[in-house]
Amino acid sequence: MITVDFGKRLKELRREAGISQEKFALKIGMDRTYYASVEAGRRNIGLENIKKIADGFEISLSELFKGVGVCNEKK
Amino acid sequence: MITVDFGKRLKELRREAGISQEKFALKIGMDRTYYASVEAGRRNIGLENIKKIADGFEISLSELFKGVGVCNEKK
Repeated sequence: MITVDFGKRLKELRREAGISQEKFALKIGMDRTYYASVEAGRRNIGLENIKKIADGFEISLSELFKGVGVCNEKK
Repeated sequence: MITVDFGKRLKELRREAGISQEKFALKIGMDRTYYASVEAGRRNIGLENIKKIADGFEISLSELFKGVGVCNEKK
């Protein structure tokens, strides 16, 4: 599922940045439990919140989605 | 706004593909008026529908978002 794949990418980026879910959520002004559920792949997150996350990692949307939903991934 | 910038990218990709909104919406199983409103930048579209659109263009999500939300774009 695409939401799961996206969540894995977020976890990867967040770990590279060396920041906790709580601190990252605070940084981007997102509810911590909501952010956690996105990382867990349980949310069909909207574009505006996706952009917030990209901004939080200081990367483009294109970079945020690098490798997401490829490799015979089903939608 | 990110939704407007994303909509412009969709219009660009769809024109490159030489397909109408109606035909593209039909191809990806999306309501035509909903798709039109996404292109117009009026929808905070969710990840699952974004993936449907990428699949419709036969490109990755990373490619779909190429150039979207850059250049001092506000979220």
